[in-house]
Amino acid sequence: MAAQNLEQIISLCKRRGFIFPGSEIYGGLQGTYDYGPLGVELKNNLKKLWWKHNVYERDDMEGIETALLTNRYVLRYSGHEKGFTDPLIDNKTTKKRYRFDHLLRDQTPETRSAVAAAFGIGEDEDLDTFVAALLEDPAKARTALITAKVVDAADGKPGDWTEPRQFNLMFKTQVGPVADDESFAYLRPETAQGMFVNFKNVLDTTNRKLPFGIAQIGKSFRNEITPRNFLFRVRELEQMEIEYFVFPGEDERVHEEWIQDHMDWWVNEVGLKRENLKLYEHVKLAHYSKRTVDILYNFPTLGFDELEGIANRTDWDLGSHSRSHDTMTLSDNTREKAMKNEHSTEKLTYFDHEAKKHIVPFVVEPAAGVDRGVLAALCEAYDEELLENGETRVVLRFKPALAPIKVAVLPLAKNKPEIVAKAKEIKRMLQASGTMRAVYDDTAAIGKLYRRQDEAGTPFCVTVDYDTLGQSRDGGTELMDTVTIRDRDTMAQERVKISELLTYVQSRIL
Amino acid sequence: MAAQNLEQIISLCKRRGFIFPGSEIYGGLQGTYDYGPLGVELKNNLKKLWWKHNVYERDDMEGIETALLTNRYVLRYSGHEKGFTDPLIDNKTTKKRYRFDHLLRDQTPETRSAVAAAFGIGEDEDLDTFVAALLEDPAKARTALITAKVVDAADGKPGDWTEPRQFNLMFKTQVGPVADDESFAYLRPETAQGMFVNFKNVLDTTNRKLPFGIAQIGKSFRNEITPRNFLFRVRELEQMEIEYFVFPGEDERVHEEWIQDHMDWWVNEVGLKRENLKLYEHVKLAHYSKRTVDILYNFPTLGFDELEGIANRTDWDLGSHSRSHDTMTLSDNTREKAMKNEHSTEKLTYFDHEAKKHIVPFVVEPAAGVDRGVLAALCEAYDEELLENGETRVVLRFKPALAPIKVAVLPLAKNKPEIVAKAKEIKRMLQASGTMRAVYDDTAAIGKLYRRQDEAGTPFCVTVDYDTLGQSRDGGTELMDTVTIRDRDTMAQERVKISELLTYVQSRIL
Repeated sequence: MAAQNLEQIISLCKRRGFIFPGSEIYGGLQGTYDYGPLGVELKNNLKKLWWKHNVYERDDMEGIETALLTNRYVLRYSGHEKGFTDPLIDNKTTKKRYRFDHLLRDQTPETRSAVAAAFGIGEDEDLDTFVAALLEDPAKARTALITAKVVDAADGKPGDWTEPRQFNLMFKTQVGPVADDESFAYLRPETAQGMFVNFKNVLDTTNRKLPFGIAQIGKSFRNEITPRNFLFRVRELEQMEIEYFVFPGEDERVHEEWIQDHMDWWVNEVGLKRENLKLYEHVKLAHYSKRTVDILYNFPTLGFDELEGIANRTDWDLGSHSRSHDTMTLSDNTREKAMKNEHSTEKLTYFDHEAKKHIVPFVVEPAAGVDRGVLAALCEAYDEELLENGETRVVLRFKPALAPIKVAVLPLAKNKPEIVAKAKEIKRMLQASGTMRAVYDDTAAIGKLYRRQDEAGTPFCVTVDYDTLGQSRDGGTELMDTVTIRDRDTMAQERVKISELLTYVQSRIL
Repeated sequence: MAAQNLEQIISLCKRRGFIFPGSEIYGGLQGTYDYGPLGVELKNNLKKLWWKHNVYERDDMEGIETALLTNRYVLRYSGHEKGFTDPLIDNKTTKKRYRFDHLLRDQTPETRSAVAAAFGIGEDEDLDTFVAALLEDPAKARTALITAKVVDAADGKPGDWTEPRQFNLMFKTQVGPVADDESFAYLRPETAQGMFVNFKNVLDTTNRKLPFGIAQIGKSFRNEITPRNFLFRVRELEQMEIEYFVFPGEDERVHEEWIQDHMDWWVNEVGLKRENLKLYEHVKLAHYSKRTVDILYNFPTLGFDELEGIANRTDWDLGSHSRSHDTMTLSDNTREKAMKNEHSTEKLTYFDHEAKKHIVPFVVEPAAGVDRGVLAALCEAYDEELLENGETRVVLRFKPALAPIKVAVLPLAKNKPEIVAKAKEIKRMLQASGTMRAVYDDTAAIGKLYRRQDEAGTPFCVTVDYDTLGQSRDGGTELMDTVTIRDRDTMAQERVKISELLTYVQSRIL
């Protein structure tokens, strides 16, 4: 039985050491999480799979890793200073603060209609348009909310609302010892900008020709007003992003290719079921986007929600970050919306040797959340199984490549020194291969140890017993130097020679 | 010839795409760096080697990865709010700001003596003691500096100095939409604290017994007053840290073991020469430390400086982060210095089953800098070699496991489609193994392509030629399906069957 709700996953994560709340012993820090012993391996395995598929196995990709602290001008000309915002509102009575769009969404249709009427907005208008209209005249919006008796869920009464306003979601920090308005940096809200501002550096050091891409995995930060839904909406997140540069005109075809490629990756390599994934075509587009398609995953409790966004960013970023871009050939959208750039020292162009001119490439960006990927992998793997003996076992059916631990070596009797010694020897032999995390565990009876590894998603348990030592009950020695391998999914057991164990496991965990 | 100065390394890093200044097209952001295509692979390889040695190949280690945004109380009770500071001073005339200890260090002995005399400090007192004495009476210090005519290097004249004061090196940021004194978090100044505050979480989810350790790799942030020396002193850094928990009384022996183990690791696995490493015994100890030994590396220009610090942190951190620690059995230092903890919800203790009582473990901490490790590996690998033809080649003699690219596949003639196709096929065969970064390059003549790979530290170049196609000049076909492998270090070439190439390379890159 699959996970029925997110609570089951959160509880397993805490109990087994996948994920803990950040700064937990001090009451936590909302929107931050710590990856425990199993979680860090799961996350690293996911990142490794992604890097392998997107960097190592392609002929057209370079990886980079840029700093999290970012010069303010990078985020000014990317459009984040102006546009990376959520609308906010306060209730002066309860001192509660809400995302303005969520407040409107959560009112009764009658209340909402009353507010809409004051602005001449039709009932069937979508929420985004509704909110945008109100933000254009905050004073009038305030009056409309109070007149329509918009309710605060905190006390169930109509609120004394402030004017709604935009709140920028970027974290800032003072850099250097002088505290003034100029000496701050942003914590990057996406890894993308680090790739754009290094476009020339990568081009100059690698001799790449279009089309080619830059890939990056790393942390980003968003000061969410209301972090929620476990790993889904957090303030500190990790991203796996690609900026793929193409000739203008090839962008639409390439966009489509990346959507298909990454859809397949989530299915074939991460192991998400295709029926749990679907594509969502954005209707409202960000300022940089010509088309954006999300890959959604069917999370328990949340339903289908974003796992990866794949955007056609056009020439927006390279254009907007270029000095004197008013003299460059840019697409209409970029030319019209980009601010005059008074701070950049570079023109982020590409020299087209055939046409003998400088052009500004278009960019296709597949951008996935590492933490959301981890969450999806956990949800997909989760299974509660009713056993023949009437007991229930929880098992995480990870693809072996994702499993935090590949093999657990367990002694059948922990008070028998030769069995313990042999088990530890086998564990060391496996881990010395450098290809897997192997563990030894003797802290419970064998049945309990199996359950523990099932919950960790360990694909193989190796048991060392009297037969292994050549001390079979029937006096026979034919099982000497063999061990039992138990399969996580089928619980079937097989007898394998120790000398063949490494090959047996390696061939099944790739 | 080894690197003569740091500038050679910085220049190579920029030219070949190892490391770029952060936010470079906007004039940079002091103390931040971006890892380019070669740099990210080098750094990831170093981290992989470390994780393998310290987590996978040991029986007593758990990995974790905790959030960078940290609840302020974590850093209050760790002692960072009070003690993680550098002394600062300003010159009101020039508006320049200095690290106070550096200002004193850079004066003439006569000027320094005059300041010392005003405080009754002997000439042979060390700088730390000198600075500490002055900071205890800042008003008197100011008068002494002005009277002694302490010079500002900016204008070469005696300065109009402010009182010296302590500056906290932690970055802060507002979290959530309310800007008040309570709603901020710190960017962690070390990864260590995330491991201490999760001590119970790890213990509860893994059934570990003492001794055992927790390992973590991740970013930390320090608002250095004057970042300098390339990757050596930066504001955004990455660390590889272990907190190894032991019974009190075993700490000194275990401390010694880790010093030896990690000294050997830098030599045997990272490939640093033993004569370029030495140990430094700290005289002044941090508030938590019973003994700290640094592993120093002999950097060009900088000389011997810190690569890793290995501290005996005693029971300071677990004790100080525990609620009601006044009721616990703690070492004298911790009991006397730890503040009353009014915010922690946990007692970070370990139940000793033999003695049947709760104890607070001691901690040994090997803490290495990833960026400094990368810099040391680059400096160690750098070699300028005079060739027979009188030319100089720059070659990075990395251990193969560290090399960003393991194999470059090069076509001898890029206008011969069969050669190009065969070369690309071989590149894909190598990378499909999932065990290495392989690249294809045809953007220059073969001699230039070799030099390029030498500078990247690529251990093997594979060349595909007419012989490979069975089209040898002499009409023979015995070299068909073979390629030339060139060794980076010796430049010797060998003929190897394509079918044996993967094994050939794999056996030499581990």
